[in-house]
Amino acid sequence: MDNFIFQNPVKILFGRGQTSLISNEIPKNSKVLLTCGGGSIRKNGVYDEVVSAMKGIDLIEFWGIEPNPVYETLMKAVEMARAENVDYLLAVGGGSVVDGTKFISVAIPYKGDPWEIIQKKGEPAVAIPFGCVLTLPATGSEMNRGAVISRRETKEKLAFHNDFAFPKFSVLDPIHTFSLPPKQVANGIVDTFVHVTEQYLTFPVDAAIQDRFSESILCALIEEGPKTLANLTDYNSRANLVWSATMGLNGLIGCGVPQDWVTHQIGHELTAYFGLDHAQTLAVILPNLLWVQRDSKRGKLIQYARRVWNIPQENEDKMIETAIANTKSFFESLGLATHLSKLGAGEDISEIIVNRFQARKLLPMGESKNLTAERIREILKLSI
Amino acid sequence: MDNFIFQNPVKILFGRGQTSLISNEIPKNSKVLLTCGGGSIRKNGVYDEVVSAMKGIDLIEFWGIEPNPVYETLMKAVEMARAENVDYLLAVGGGSVVDGTKFISVAIPYKGDPWEIIQKKGEPAVAIPFGCVLTLPATGSEMNRGAVISRRETKEKLAFHNDFAFPKFSVLDPIHTFSLPPKQVANGIVDTFVHVTEQYLTFPVDAAIQDRFSESILCALIEEGPKTLANLTDYNSRANLVWSATMGLNGLIGCGVPQDWVTHQIGHELTAYFGLDHAQTLAVILPNLLWVQRDSKRGKLIQYARRVWNIPQENEDKMIETAIANTKSFFESLGLATHLSKLGAGEDISEIIVNRFQARKLLPMGESKNLTAERIREILKLSI
Repeated sequence: MDNFIFQNPVKILFGRGQTSLISNEIPKNSKVLLTCGGGSIRKNGVYDEVVSAMKGIDLIEFWGIEPNPVYETLMKAVEMARAENVDYLLAVGGGSVVDGTKFISVAIPYKGDPWEIIQKKGEPAVAIPFGCVLTLPATGSEMNRGAVISRRETKEKLAFHNDFAFPKFSVLDPIHTFSLPPKQVANGIVDTFVHVTEQYLTFPVDAAIQDRFSESILCALIEEGPKTLANLTDYNSRANLVWSATMGLNGLIGCGVPQDWVTHQIGHELTAYFGLDHAQTLAVILPNLLWVQRDSKRGKLIQYARRVWNIPQENEDKMIETAIANTKSFFESLGLATHLSKLGAGEDISEIIVNRFQARKLLPMGESKNLTAERIREILKLSI
Repeated sequence: MDNFIFQNPVKILFGRGQTSLISNEIPKNSKVLLTCGGGSIRKNGVYDEVVSAMKGIDLIEFWGIEPNPVYETLMKAVEMARAENVDYLLAVGGGSVVDGTKFISVAIPYKGDPWEIIQKKGEPAVAIPFGCVLTLPATGSEMNRGAVISRRETKEKLAFHNDFAFPKFSVLDPIHTFSLPPKQVANGIVDTFVHVTEQYLTFPVDAAIQDRFSESILCALIEEGPKTLANLTDYNSRANLVWSATMGLNGLIGCGVPQDWVTHQIGHELTAYFGLDHAQTLAVILPNLLWVQRDSKRGKLIQYARRVWNIPQENEDKMIETAIANTKSFFESLGLATHLSKLGAGEDISEIIVNRFQARKLLPMGESKNLTAERIREILKLSI
């Protein structure tokens, strides 16, 4: 096991009706800015529930944080918060609203252009505290210190990580996610699955707990994913999905182990190029990345085959092949495509992506630094 | 899954040499009181390592916190800290030193008799912050908000739980535990195993992640326990044991599930009566408690048989019997006895324990409130 430092102070309020507790979490006499997305929370009752729980608290609202939240939009919320002397933020929505709110939180008190924080040219010294009422299980943002922000002007999409980006509290009420379209639920399952494999399918470092916790989440997704899609208002399976998504990216399973975020890195480029859903790009790339990297990921792939897919001990090459095929079938069973051509994106963009990675001096990539330009071309060729 | 609230802000510094980082965690110009046990840290080099990492920090020392830390001793540390205007504590030792330091931390600024905190007659309003350098993996105290304190005068042994009792940071360097006698290592494995079963072997509430995380820790202990005992300086197996012990009692696996702490409750009485090691009492009681409670724990016992012990699906009564027998054999394989008579404690103390539980109005006990006086007598009869 590698050395690690772990800390995650987020307070989780999990379950039916826990929104009613949020006023206890917000300091008395706060002026709160509610940050929201496009309006689905008005239809499913979450907005009303939040406003009723905040009775007596001075509240203003900012609407319109989009999927893949955009700097230009977020800066309008920053201006509003500054003008109104807001001292607490409450994100109500999915991962994009939470990510956007993380940026607003550090941007409000920042002296200078807040984009510097994203560019890692400036460090925030303070932040406006914020809480979160989650409506979509997928990104894990409700219990981590990261966010991804896009800038229209420069066509950039960049991540930032900061201890200020931990929510003070997050309400995870599975019922808040019942009205999601099945496609978004399936995307959340795949997004979580890939978050876990990126911290798990690398090379073994004898980290027994981290490995088994990762396998736990993968097994839970394989078991609970189809159940929650078959019955969109089944409380227990949805609760298990919500908690899986949170545990998949709150830092715990990544403690002291190598990580490989290349599926996400290639996925971000495919989203930028073809406008595909984030989870959809992951479903296409992951199985092919595992296949191309099956040499350096061999030990973990065999463990994955045995412990996650219950593949009996046999020829090890065959075990790996079956485990990767099962992964692909699982994504397909949830309704996601595993080939770009099925998404109307048949064009070979290998060179474009390879060139971008080269320009950013990222190659060779991956936990073993063996993912060369040639191997990335191979992954993308298999993905068409 | 039941509703839950979870928060654990402890910063973990895990791995080789992480003690060198502690001066970053302690505010500048602090006056620190080092709290220690009986002196083993002087022999194994941990004391020297800590003092060298604290160079330049104003440091005084309190020695002599005993196993099952005692109020009377701890109050001497409180007096010293008050007289010397200490504003940070650093516990260096095992669970008893950490538990004792938790009490010292809230007692120093407490107006009135600090024993009121333990008796739940008074709430601490502030506390002196503290960190911890752990030398014994077992209690989980390094990452939780609980402590058990004894009082000689009144022969009481009571637990207290408080958010102030979270360490600010804990250093978990597996090497610090290498010099432990094998018996203490084995005790730590059993203590952790039982902490997990007490949060896991109850009745099913469809909590997929909590169940699988619990099974993860149990499987890791079964696999890594014998390895670490076979080679007391093997870094990886010891690291896995240390992280298992921490994860077994930091609140995570207990989120949203029923719990059954009766094995610990009976165990505490056996320790008080016969002076037996804490883990030793748990090894005796757990298998018999599971057997007597096999009706109401049925669903979980079958799952435990299948997932932890890999017992093939067959007659379910037989599966349960085998799983409990395996549990017993596992404890015995680590060198612990599973019968009181083998510990020289053959006397039937059923009535004494039942009377104590009755006097405290605790009966019936357990997650299903079906552990009657009669069933406790049965457990103890099987335990002789």
